[in-house]
Amino acid sequence: MPQYRAPVEDTLFLLTDVLGFHARDNLAGFADASPDVIEAVLREGAKLAEEVLAPINRTGDLEGCRRDADGTVRTPTGFKAAYDTYASGGWMGLSVPEAYGGQGLPHTLNTAIQEFASGANLAFGMYPGLTQGAMAALLVHGTEEQKALYLPRMVEGAWTGTMNLTEPHCGTDLGLLKTKAVPNGDGAYSITGTKIFISAGEHDLAENIVHLVLARIEGAPAGTKGISLFVVPKVLVNADGTLGARNGVSCGSLEHKMGIHGNATCVMNYDGATGWLVGQENRGLNAMFVMMNEARLAVGVQGLGQSEVAYQNAAAYAKDRLQGRALTGAKAPDKAADPIIVHPDVRRTLMQIRAFNEAARALMLWTALQADILHRSEDARERQAADDYLGLMTPVVKGVFTDRGFANAVEAQQLLGGHGYIEEWGMSQFVRDARIAMIYEGANGIQAMDLIGRKLPKDGGRAMMTFLGEVQTFLKDHGEDPAMAPFTQPLQAGLNDLQGAVMWLMQNAFAKPDNAGAGATDFMHLFGLVALGYMWARIAKAAQAKHAEAPSPRWESKLTSGRFYMERMLPETALRLARIKAGADSTMALAADAF
Amino acid sequence: MPQYRAPVEDTLFLLTDVLGFHARDNLAGFADASPDVIEAVLREGAKLAEEVLAPINRTGDLEGCRRDADGTVRTPTGFKAAYDTYASGGWMGLSVPEAYGGQGLPHTLNTAIQEFASGANLAFGMYPGLTQGAMAALLVHGTEEQKALYLPRMVEGAWTGTMNLTEPHCGTDLGLLKTKAVPNGDGAYSITGTKIFISAGEHDLAENIVHLVLARIEGAPAGTKGISLFVVPKVLVNADGTLGARNGVSCGSLEHKMGIHGNATCVMNYDGATGWLVGQENRGLNAMFVMMNEARLAVGVQGLGQSEVAYQNAAAYAKDRLQGRALTGAKAPDKAADPIIVHPDVRRTLMQIRAFNEAARALMLWTALQADILHRSEDARERQAADDYLGLMTPVVKGVFTDRGFANAVEAQQLLGGHGYIEEWGMSQFVRDARIAMIYEGANGIQAMDLIGRKLPKDGGRAMMTFLGEVQTFLKDHGEDPAMAPFTQPLQAGLNDLQGAVMWLMQNAFAKPDNAGAGATDFMHLFGLVALGYMWARIAKAAQAKHAEAPSPRWESKLTSGRFYMERMLPETALRLARIKAGADSTMALAADAF
Repeated sequence: MPQYRAPVEDTLFLLTDVLGFHARDNLAGFADASPDVIEAVLREGAKLAEEVLAPINRTGDLEGCRRDADGTVRTPTGFKAAYDTYASGGWMGLSVPEAYGGQGLPHTLNTAIQEFASGANLAFGMYPGLTQGAMAALLVHGTEEQKALYLPRMVEGAWTGTMNLTEPHCGTDLGLLKTKAVPNGDGAYSITGTKIFISAGEHDLAENIVHLVLARIEGAPAGTKGISLFVVPKVLVNADGTLGARNGVSCGSLEHKMGIHGNATCVMNYDGATGWLVGQENRGLNAMFVMMNEARLAVGVQGLGQSEVAYQNAAAYAKDRLQGRALTGAKAPDKAADPIIVHPDVRRTLMQIRAFNEAARALMLWTALQADILHRSEDARERQAADDYLGLMTPVVKGVFTDRGFANAVEAQQLLGGHGYIEEWGMSQFVRDARIAMIYEGANGIQAMDLIGRKLPKDGGRAMMTFLGEVQTFLKDHGEDPAMAPFTQPLQAGLNDLQGAVMWLMQNAFAKPDNAGAGATDFMHLFGLVALGYMWARIAKAAQAKHAEAPSPRWESKLTSGRFYMERMLPETALRLARIKAGADSTMALAADAF
Repeated sequence: MPQYRAPVEDTLFLLTDVLGFHARDNLAGFADASPDVIEAVLREGAKLAEEVLAPINRTGDLEGCRRDADGTVRTPTGFKAAYDTYASGGWMGLSVPEAYGGQGLPHTLNTAIQEFASGANLAFGMYPGLTQGAMAALLVHGTEEQKALYLPRMVEGAWTGTMNLTEPHCGTDLGLLKTKAVPNGDGAYSITGTKIFISAGEHDLAENIVHLVLARIEGAPAGTKGISLFVVPKVLVNADGTLGARNGVSCGSLEHKMGIHGNATCVMNYDGATGWLVGQENRGLNAMFVMMNEARLAVGVQGLGQSEVAYQNAAAYAKDRLQGRALTGAKAPDKAADPIIVHPDVRRTLMQIRAFNEAARALMLWTALQADILHRSEDARERQAADDYLGLMTPVVKGVFTDRGFANAVEAQQLLGGHGYIEEWGMSQFVRDARIAMIYEGANGIQAMDLIGRKLPKDGGRAMMTFLGEVQTFLKDHGEDPAMAPFTQPLQAGLNDLQGAVMWLMQNAFAKPDNAGAGATDFMHLFGLVALGYMWARIAKAAQAKHAEAPSPRWESKLTSGRFYMERMLPETALRLARIKAGADSTMALAADAF
């Protein structure tokens, strides 16, 4: 039976010692988030993840969701009780403004809790995750009336949320969207169409489901400029907030998926369902982007969560399983064999995963902190910088964390040999569940295109220049410190590769956009490698300070993991740069029918 | 519904124009394998794979195998009929000597057919695959009597074979093996113990199953030096070859696995089963290695097979799915959107897979040809060289083909977006099925250790020196040819990295074996990259000659795929070398309890 332990200590260290979280009292809600409060919330969240969500992960996979003939959907055994615990604990509204019943705590803290939930039970975590995304869109684009009507009940967990974008013939290319919205004459619209791959589209966890739906108002322009966003509750809501009649939306079927069986992935049929416009007419994509950016970061967090839980279970197996002897002589001579953790290739695997996880956690929290700055700072320049940073880093967190998160789950599974392939051990589920995160909320190739085609050139490359400058400043500040040399020297090499890639793209991609497209995925990973390397350098600095204060093997392990990253993982930047510089010629030369 | 097309034309080109297959008439059986015969056999094998095996792949996954209360196991619907077609077509004995009823054709040809079967239906292909492995072990180590008793019936397909190594507490470390063999006094032994993960251990395809079982004869030395190999038929065989009483071996349960659901993975209980020694007492591992090496190559072939079928279905989708517009302007302006194959990142994915597949197919056939030389040549020096080559290349083919085969299946799945995650489309099955190949027949970390710890240093590094010399000779012969420069120059760089790694290991791994262990996986992939690069250079040479003879887009596509490999894939050697040279320090520094 796989286990999960939420990384509370590491999260506290990162917030306090690496990211200066407690120095941000200028941000609304941060003063309330004292070190004591933060620690208490993290420990409670860990308990929830470890004791409530993790125990129903495997049963949820085995049982899956079931749709009855009347279109109702039952979640796996235990999900409803766990959901009630989650909701009554106030987790749904952790960082929602107090005006709507939330706790108004930092989004950064909420992100840490998202990691715990994603590690413990990805399929479960999606139900509240989508609700939080829907709340974010309503908060920014909803009318006061809509916010007052929906948010308090969603914060309570009485109602959940979804996002409805994809249709059978359109996923990435939303311009092809066909779902229709016809004005009813009373300010509402009648929505008709079919949406597919709708996560948490129908279930038995809550009494209502608030669907946010993209549709085209009759007569709207073709393409993406004619798409609007609507709120379409499963059960109509009376003006006083009580529930009325059932709306014309239903689950037509459930998809049979590779993983996340505990989450209901629905075909949703809208058959003249009543919906209300959110934001402006024909500006639906704009409104949806709030939700999508939030969701993309949350999906990156899922990649980390699955990487962490897979690591933990592989490490436990490696310390337990006796097989063979160390190359340097028996380490457990009293036993029939040594635990396999003595073998260098086993350690290589584990080091590779933990060196990613620890830096990714830092990058996740740092990115979440920028979201708090964007939404809570009163300093316009600080908000602008945070907005730049978020735009630039969102596709990287989504794409790199989920690519590596999946790859790490596969590596962790490998350590168990045949047992890793057998469902009983749970490693297969981590792999199957982690796989979706590379796909949904924009497949990773789309993230790479978003990064290289939109985010990188935006505002004359301002966001990237700021990032490069920040890392260069760090390197200048610490370049003379010999204790930091194992970190600063490789980071400088990685940064040079990233700068080299940016330069090459400036010179070669404007005239020939295929050169950007063919290098997009490599550029995204190159950027991710450097961003994680920068995190490691900052972690190393903090760990050295802690070690100087009170020496501990914990800080030595940190520094070793960081060195491993610098020696064995960061050098991948050179390969990524070489691929980008190869350009698009051999990639694009074949005729389509040659494939 | 996924489709499969066996790569007959490519196989013919590789055999005839790249590998000089028809110049090997000095080998027994090759004279019979005229170009006409080869082509006819490949076309028939393709038909079998495409029309008989592929159509039952997905149903086999959905249905799986079922064990009834009496211990009998039913394979999925259609498997028995397909098996009968397979057996009656003479495929089982394609390369088995005619003395035992086989066709005596080259093993190289059999390997090509294995690729087709593995691409069409991996779970099915394992039943004959294991039978062929068992026949190989009996051919080399069985007595004349054993061979006469078992082989003809196995060649007919009336009986299948298995290999029984793993026990609950021992997989890699067979020295821990506990299954006992007690002499019965009549030359036979009574075998008792439990084996797990036994593929094709029990099923309804054949009237008997010939288990090859590792066990420890009472009083034998501890560890690997006390292990013997036994043949243990499911149904006892009378001296005249007719079937007698049921033997004391049965399937205790079936494993629930991530994939290959159509293959029965059994816990096998030996309860005083009657078995007969194969080969010498306490030399069972030696005898089993014949089977394991054969099986390891066959598993590498499975990686290629799954990579190919995943590629084909992703390419078909990419040509069909309309979404977005090309960066360089609409390519299908009459349609609502362009097919996604116009997008550079989609092409990058497809090119990466095909550039692997085409070179891997060459390396597979070349390696299989060495097996034919080893077993069929009358020239002792040639046999020695082939034996060296096979020993060196077996872990590379197994480890690299299955790591990349799985990664390619994942990449192919990604092209389908959400549809890739839905079981109906079949891509998930390719991923789940391909995953096992990285694990069984020695997990890939074990392959890497076998390569770096045993095969590389063996005979003073003779095999590796021969390989390096051969590639260097090729580069010398073609280094002046400007048309070959896009291939020879990158190959020289890759070869230098490989030589650099060998040198570094010679200097750093003898005194500190952890330096070898920590670099083992990287070394295996570095070697694989160069071996595939060498294949590409040879393919390019042949394609240029064909193109000069009769210009065709086919040869241009070949050369483009080769250039893609050289520009974007082979440069990975530098990263692998950098990791190896990082040594074992950061990998091994942590205390076990820090994980």
